Amino acid sequence: MDTSEARDYFVDLQQRIVARLEAIDGRAFRRDAWERPAGGEGVSCVIEQGNVFERGGVNFSHVNGDSLPPSATATRPQLAGRGFEVMGVSLVLHPRNPYAPTVHMNVRLFVALPLAAGEVAAPHAQPNWWFGGGMDLTPYYGFEDDAIHFHRTCRTALEAFGTEYHPRFKRSCDAYFFLRHRNEPRGIGGIFYDDLNEGGFEHCFALTRSVADHFLPAYEPILERRKDHAYGERERDFQAYRRGRYVEFNLVYDRGTLFGLQSNGRAEAILMSLPPLVKWRYDWRPEPGSPEARLYTDFLVAKDWLA
Amino acid sequence: MDTSEARDYFVDLQQRIVARLEAIDGRAFRRDAWERPAGGEGVSCVIEQGNVFERGGVNFSHVNGDSLPPSATATRPQLAGRGFEVMGVSLVLHPRNPYAPTVHMNVRLFVALPLAAGEVAAPHAQPNWWFGGGMDLTPYYGFEDDAIHFHRTCRTALEAFGTEYHPRFKRSCDAYFFLRHRNEPRGIGGIFYDDLNEGGFEHCFALTRSVADHFLPAYEPILERRKDHAYGERERDFQAYRRGRYVEFNLVYDRGTLFGLQSNGRAEAILMSLPPLVKWRYDWRPEPGSPEARLYTDFLVAKDWLA
Repeated sequence: MDTSEARDYFVDLQQRIVARLEAIDGRAFRRDAWERPAGGEGVSCVIEQGNVFERGGVNFSHVNGDSLPPSATATRPQLAGRGFEVMGVSLVLHPRNPYAPTVHMNVRLFVALPLAAGEVAAPHAQPNWWFGGGMDLTPYYGFEDDAIHFHRTCRTALEAFGTEYHPRFKRSCDAYFFLRHRNEPRGIGGIFYDDLNEGGFEHCFALTRSVADHFLPAYEPILERRKDHAYGERERDFQAYRRGRYVEFNLVYDRGTLFGLQSNGRAEAILMSLPPLVKWRYDWRPEPGSPEARLYTDFLVAKDWLA
Repeated sequence: MDTSEARDYFVDLQQRIVARLEAIDGRAFRRDAWERPAGGEGVSCVIEQGNVFERGGVNFSHVNGDSLPPSATATRPQLAGRGFEVMGVSLVLHPRNPYAPTVHMNVRLFVALPLAAGEVAAPHAQPNWWFGGGMDLTPYYGFEDDAIHFHRTCRTALEAFGTEYHPRFKRSCDAYFFLRHRNEPRGIGGIFYDDLNEGGFEHCFALTRSVADHFLPAYEPILERRKDHAYGERERDFQAYRRGRYVEFNLVYDRGTLFGLQSNGRAEAILMSLPPLVKWRYDWRPEPGSPEARLYTDFLVAKDWLA
């Protein structure tokens, strides 16, 4: 297992995606290289008040630590407290146009070191490693075409690795991006996986690269179709209200966010996922039959978009 | 231990506070009585787009359940999984005027039932109970007079019960309302206590009543002084930015919020604490020496306001 190859891939991925997003927006991202005192480094690429993106970030990070925090070992309690190394790229984009959906993509490699202090090594102890990743779409005004295109591209990204992956990762996505306290999905889903360690490192790494490389093909055509759609105050208001759900999910449930905050990550980079302008209001419901209501009835529902 | 007396007190407290806030605002709160399918009930009193309050809520709830969630037993792991009853009043007020601080007050009584399924009763097994509560102030533009008045009233609320309470509860407040990922307090503090079970039920109940009864004397003079202060877009913008910290605290750290969400509480009532309009922006810092910078340098610091 050579983690430097993964690192090179993630560094290049960030550059490629940012370059393309800059071409779309017409404005440059700000680039901040940072070091983490407790170990590790990263580069945050951020855009705010762009022509297309009201706020967005594409972060690379590669950090290590003495003790895996609970958010990273929920499904592997035997690894709690081990030293670790984690690297990856995470992005969230909040377009200004309410007809253009928010998108999230993340790919990462986790390595838990084999020995905790005082533990006796098995004869051929290997580090534990796993990949995680995925992408998901959060529209404010839903479009069937967009949902089909996004899910189709997710399926394409995975099909060379086995036909079972897409349904499995789509289900994981629906289960993960769900606000239990609202009984509501965050968006229309996509794919999500974590703890992927099967078929060998090369298989998992290749799958992860394919997911990441399909991000732009999945999102760019949707953005191009929607970014110049006419809108007014009503749509901006609904967008700001719905963005509240994004904040609720990321701060209450999201493992990556909690892992970052618990492991003394760089808060400003982690919280790049939060939208620029958000409204909360009490017990608000859309007018039945309105375009806003259709988001709830036609899009924020469990659905097989490729059926 | 008679919990009906506590219940009567909390119900009346909510009514008294809402009546006074309505007199201040000039607009009525909306009142929503609700029942929780899994057991319990409450009344949410909410104001939005009032003359003084941009958003605020005063909630009474009295709920019971089969199994205490983890957020309620962090410091009492032996009670995890027990049946419970919890009642109290919780309020958060977000004035529109950026010179008027946001305030939070909460008082509650927790009762953990003595027996989990299959557990053998001790001969004189009693339910475990504890009170919790406090109030704290979150200014956007700080005023020394306000901070002194608020802390002085908190001290007055506690002094009849023992001189050690105020310093102890002030320290707890500073420790609790702290954003670790920002290394920054939420506001200027006040008092906070949890797990209070000492000197008998009557002592703890009387102390809790005194805290709650000092809420209006602590906050109202400050609000009266600041609610008509002239302000512009700059101050509104800073207020919206700082309100992001309030969201981050409540969704990432606040035990009451997490308890409510984990126990299938009424999300709209619990999330009344979230501000109406919030902005996030990347790596923003106030101009050194500006009024905004003075919030950080002069108010968001550990400080004995009564020295």
